[in-house]
Amino acid sequence: MAQNVGQPVTGMKEKHAFEAAPPSEHIERMQRARQEQGEAGIALSELWVGLAAEKKEDGSVDIGFACHDGTYNVDFAVHNLSVSPEKAKAQRDSSGPTHLPADKVGQAAAIADYLVCSIRDYEQRNSYKFLGAGIAQEVVQLSPQTPARLWSELDIVPVVIPEKEGGSLRSGENMDGVLGVDELADSLTRKCLAYFGPSSQPRVQVGFNNNVEVDLGGRVDLTAIEQYKQSVHPRTWSAATKYAQSLRDGNKKIAFFSATPQGGGVALMRHALLRFFRLMGVDCTWWVPKPKPEVFRVTKTNHNILQGVADPKEHLTKEKQKLLLDWVHSNAERFWTKPGGPLSPRSQGGVDVVIVDDPQMPAIIDIAKKMDPDRPVIFRSHIQVRADLAENPETNTAGVWEWLWGSVQHADVFISHPVSAFVPHTVNKKSLGYMPATTDWFDGLNKELSDFDTAYYLHEFNTECRRQRMVTLAYPARDYIVQIARFDPAKGIPDVVAGYAEFRRTSNFCKGKSAEQTPQLVICGPCSVDDPDGLMVLNQTLEMLDTTYVDIKESVVVMRLGPTDQLLNALMSNAKVGLQLSTREGFEVKVSEGLHKGVPMIVSKAGGIPLQVQHDKSGFLVEPGDASAVAKYLDVLFSDEQKYKSMSEFAATHVSDEVGTVGNAVCWMFLADTLAKKGQRLEPNARWIWDLAREGAGEPVKDDGEVWLPRDWTT
Amino acid sequence: MAQNVGQPVTGMKEKHAFEAAPPSEHIERMQRARQEQGEAGIALSELWVGLAAEKKEDGSVDIGFACHDGTYNVDFAVHNLSVSPEKAKAQRDSSGPTHLPADKVGQAAAIADYLVCSIRDYEQRNSYKFLGAGIAQEVVQLSPQTPARLWSELDIVPVVIPEKEGGSLRSGENMDGVLGVDELADSLTRKCLAYFGPSSQPRVQVGFNNNVEVDLGGRVDLTAIEQYKQSVHPRTWSAATKYAQSLRDGNKKIAFFSATPQGGGVALMRHALLRFFRLMGVDCTWWVPKPKPEVFRVTKTNHNILQGVADPKEHLTKEKQKLLLDWVHSNAERFWTKPGGPLSPRSQGGVDVVIVDDPQMPAIIDIAKKMDPDRPVIFRSHIQVRADLAENPETNTAGVWEWLWGSVQHADVFISHPVSAFVPHTVNKKSLGYMPATTDWFDGLNKELSDFDTAYYLHEFNTECRRQRMVTLAYPARDYIVQIARFDPAKGIPDVVAGYAEFRRTSNFCKGKSAEQTPQLVICGPCSVDDPDGLMVLNQTLEMLDTTYVDIKESVVVMRLGPTDQLLNALMSNAKVGLQLSTREGFEVKVSEGLHKGVPMIVSKAGGIPLQVQHDKSGFLVEPGDASAVAKYLDVLFSDEQKYKSMSEFAATHVSDEVGTVGNAVCWMFLADTLAKKGQRLEPNARWIWDLAREGAGEPVKDDGEVWLPRDWTT
Repeated sequence: MAQNVGQPVTGMKEKHAFEAAPPSEHIERMQRARQEQGEAGIALSELWVGLAAEKKEDGSVDIGFACHDGTYNVDFAVHNLSVSPEKAKAQRDSSGPTHLPADKVGQAAAIADYLVCSIRDYEQRNSYKFLGAGIAQEVVQLSPQTPARLWSELDIVPVVIPEKEGGSLRSGENMDGVLGVDELADSLTRKCLAYFGPSSQPRVQVGFNNNVEVDLGGRVDLTAIEQYKQSVHPRTWSAATKYAQSLRDGNKKIAFFSATPQGGGVALMRHALLRFFRLMGVDCTWWVPKPKPEVFRVTKTNHNILQGVADPKEHLTKEKQKLLLDWVHSNAERFWTKPGGPLSPRSQGGVDVVIVDDPQMPAIIDIAKKMDPDRPVIFRSHIQVRADLAENPETNTAGVWEWLWGSVQHADVFISHPVSAFVPHTVNKKSLGYMPATTDWFDGLNKELSDFDTAYYLHEFNTECRRQRMVTLAYPARDYIVQIARFDPAKGIPDVVAGYAEFRRTSNFCKGKSAEQTPQLVICGPCSVDDPDGLMVLNQTLEMLDTTYVDIKESVVVMRLGPTDQLLNALMSNAKVGLQLSTREGFEVKVSEGLHKGVPMIVSKAGGIPLQVQHDKSGFLVEPGDASAVAKYLDVLFSDEQKYKSMSEFAATHVSDEVGTVGNAVCWMFLADTLAKKGQRLEPNARWIWDLAREGAGEPVKDDGEVWLPRDWTT
Repeated sequence: MAQNVGQPVTGMKEKHAFEAAPPSEHIERMQRARQEQGEAGIALSELWVGLAAEKKEDGSVDIGFACHDGTYNVDFAVHNLSVSPEKAKAQRDSSGPTHLPADKVGQAAAIADYLVCSIRDYEQRNSYKFLGAGIAQEVVQLSPQTPARLWSELDIVPVVIPEKEGGSLRSGENMDGVLGVDELADSLTRKCLAYFGPSSQPRVQVGFNNNVEVDLGGRVDLTAIEQYKQSVHPRTWSAATKYAQSLRDGNKKIAFFSATPQGGGVALMRHALLRFFRLMGVDCTWWVPKPKPEVFRVTKTNHNILQGVADPKEHLTKEKQKLLLDWVHSNAERFWTKPGGPLSPRSQGGVDVVIVDDPQMPAIIDIAKKMDPDRPVIFRSHIQVRADLAENPETNTAGVWEWLWGSVQHADVFISHPVSAFVPHTVNKKSLGYMPATTDWFDGLNKELSDFDTAYYLHEFNTECRRQRMVTLAYPARDYIVQIARFDPAKGIPDVVAGYAEFRRTSNFCKGKSAEQTPQLVICGPCSVDDPDGLMVLNQTLEMLDTTYVDIKESVVVMRLGPTDQLLNALMSNAKVGLQLSTREGFEVKVSEGLHKGVPMIVSKAGGIPLQVQHDKSGFLVEPGDASAVAKYLDVLFSDEQKYKSMSEFAATHVSDEVGTVGNAVCWMFLADTLAKKGQRLEPNARWIWDLAREGAGEPVKDDGEVWLPRDWTT
């Protein structure tokens, strides 16, 4: 099998070989059809793999592979690997830091190399796509880097299965007795699969006392600390390690509280943050209430009222306030305030810093203070509160804000998106600090995908287009322009279509070209079935195309998307230009995600968007609603190849550490570390937490090439 | 919401209404495109539903609905139902038997009506498809028929969630405390989803000591006993109830042993059988070994050797025999022979009758006899053993047969497919009995699907065709001919293509017609990635179409299919004609499945196939390899509408009880009941067990219109 294996592997014996043979005619036929259609991918069979390892007496290692198609185990192999100690030693220095003794480092890297190459080879030869891997503890002991490499290089979700679940090669340690390496690999595929739901994604797990078990409670081992270090400025990294050290030394515990464990930007950020904190040894937990649909309908309306987009007749009545309060109290009492619970007093094992991460459960602030009055509490407002409406007592916004403020005023720090218009004047400026939304460079949305995986995801996208009888993406035969955003009245989708139409109809670039020679437009994003506004926008968009834009509609792909991060990643990464034309916006970190992939972004000046794009350098800023400007800049980006190239390069290299997970972690660690120190107060005074954190770590941001977001838009 | 609700529901109040609105432009656009393409379906959003109920003090019932899309909870409603006692009483008599007190029967039916109508209405209005339902115990207590009706009428897998898993409306009975009906419904969707894997099918569960937990250990409540009763002749039903009574009265326990809990005909039959036995109160369990890939590779080869299709160089060596023996013994000792285990002596709680259901684990026979020498053991051979080869000592078949016979000779009864050529002469005719393979009229393969669900599955099929860049099914714009079978050298696929080609090229029916006016050909079936023969056949078929059959290849759909029974069902049900042109065959009950749906079948005289089709009445028999005869009969069926109609009707009404689950159960119950009686011997003498069973129950098969399979082909 694998030809291109790690150098230190000096011998490989196939005790049992894989049997799978490719359906070659079928693959060839698909390839021909693909070429005729000019599209990006072919259908791969989706599989899961189990990986077991057994150290033999002669120093060699047996590796057991097993493959499962979601219903059956379909193939397996057992390979015996010998690793040359000398060559392994030579490889040692090129590997990153590890907890292994020096003589094991080279072997560890060699095994990871071997596994990655073998699996890649097997996948590509047979047109398979592995979605997940069930990995035995023994494999991780021999080669700690294997899980993160499977994720970053092969886009496989690596699930490390504890011995008590997956069985063991050793006798007497589990109910299943002693297993052979083939049986263990087989068993691991099934254990791994049990974590995957119908969307072929690992299920989000909520555990004891409604604790969010990020990455399946640590079983999914997606990233290595070295990756984070290399992704940020050395001064950022220095700040991160200093705060982590201080929190570890002080045994400080942090707890986040929010309404849901998945869906939306808050949850995405928290999963990424807790993943990083686990690697850094920072004790941070995340708690969610038991979902109650009746309550969520009220909180969704509150959310819309705060943003000024709800029906003015909607009010947060006394009955609804009582419903919310009862709900928060019942959750707190059942799960969190008992001795040892996160909200119990610190003397009883409660956490040191409480962070209330969204406006659904403000009463948590009161409960936390009641349980332990001196314990610091932070409130983070992640929505673009219409401060103007909140200050007008005639509005329903004022009503919800007043209710919210009744609790939030007791928090020690108020964190907002870095847009001053989102902060009502009631908020004491002393307690106010700004933090942007952030994204994670190593999760499914942002990590670099191989060509093989990209082709897979784009083909799945086109399959879903065909399923919904939608226009398909003709990439790479045609370039495309993309806006990825929810179907929402504030996302400026009419401007996206109008800008593209003007570009197609009047630009120099498109003049005289047939439709096939022009780029396509892709408008896609999540759209929940219970989001009437989203459905309205979707319906309007499709109707516009059928009426006002009949001439271009065969070039426009409008799709609601499922939960697969990598698909969004592939769509953004391969776009020629990205748009984000919101008329109202919070921060929208997707803009930075596009830039990071080297995609120049044409964006509107709304909310935190203009903080992220440097006009004429990494993209173009337009006034909300100015479709002609969009058309003009599209023409520039498609016509001027040299300019496009330099903008793309600038974009990829000018994204601030502030919008990544490490930057986010630095801010939260600074806040927690500072507030948790006895007698210490913190008054951000409407400054960016990033600046305070970097200064506090003795690593202030300097004007020596480090990128940061402009401050002048906001304060 | 639902207009067409059950009559006894006199009042419905929406405490909370569903919010979901249909993406109407999107649906309309899909409908237009569908009409242009002449195809059968549109894309539905796949959801799961949670159903909770709470009896109120005024006698009314609160029903909580919640909807989940696999990632998020997306909608919910709470409806309050009042049921008129008088009207409910009137409805009582029209309902089937139940354990409810008389005054609850009408209410039970009314609630089931209401739920079925409400959900159907909601699905159709919003273009949703519910795949599964998490149902609270309270719902089943109020309306026991609800789960089976969800399955049979709406094609929803009904998972009844035990209180300790799903939570409860009552206080103090579970760790989650008291829940509202909205919370409980919400929780039930997630509990239900946890049973569904990436294929969107419930996972097969193997539990303690490797017991196969059929229907999620009884949580999935697919069928009602009344359905079975109505599906068979009254004399068959009488026999079934007599044997069930006798086994229940004697507290007899039956245990099946086979190699895998899913995949292939054996597993399908056992799931159906155990589902029926559970409803009948017959104590029957099913046990499988812990999978060991190394062993399965050997048993797969044995299987091929017995059928005479393996490489003649493959032999069952002493080493392999030892591997198999060690494997069976280690499984038996770990799981089954300990006191209380199924193979322990009857005096220690072991079962009364042991059935070894496939040739992978013959040593179970020896172990069962060693543990309890007088306990009856039945061996069932479900493969078409090449008896001629088994009797020729030069062959590898003789080697495997000898090994198998070494254990099988100790079984009390030897059951074979009803084809004498499959039984080597070594088998003592006294111990030999015949039983056909069977199918289940109420499982996903055979139950009647609504037009709505049919359109959903056929559209999913076409989506998968497009994903694999395959020709799509133009039904209903074009009729089609189908062969559903594994891609296997013995399935006669070249004859299928040749017969269709001749029909297209030379028949009267097709003469002068454009391709669009002729029927399509669909060749589909499972094809495992580890089945080199299957891949070879697939490759050859595609190659033939590209070379010999270029003129018709745009009309031929060749697809490997996943595990969804309902898709196969929809494909067979809507075919104009079915083919089954195997050159070698065991029994192939799919032939009877086609007939049962009223699809005339053109089939080859191989194995048990000709037993199932009455020539010129329910279909046509051809010699294996006679493609011209296939073409001729296709012409008859497409040209002569009157004859087609009468054959279709005859087919649908002339399927024997012998090939259904009840027939299968009668045979097994007869065997178990007879053998388990102290001192009783059983010598089938190469007769059909069906005949013995019906005679034994005092309900012999009579020539008064009851359909049975012909005996003269076989003995």
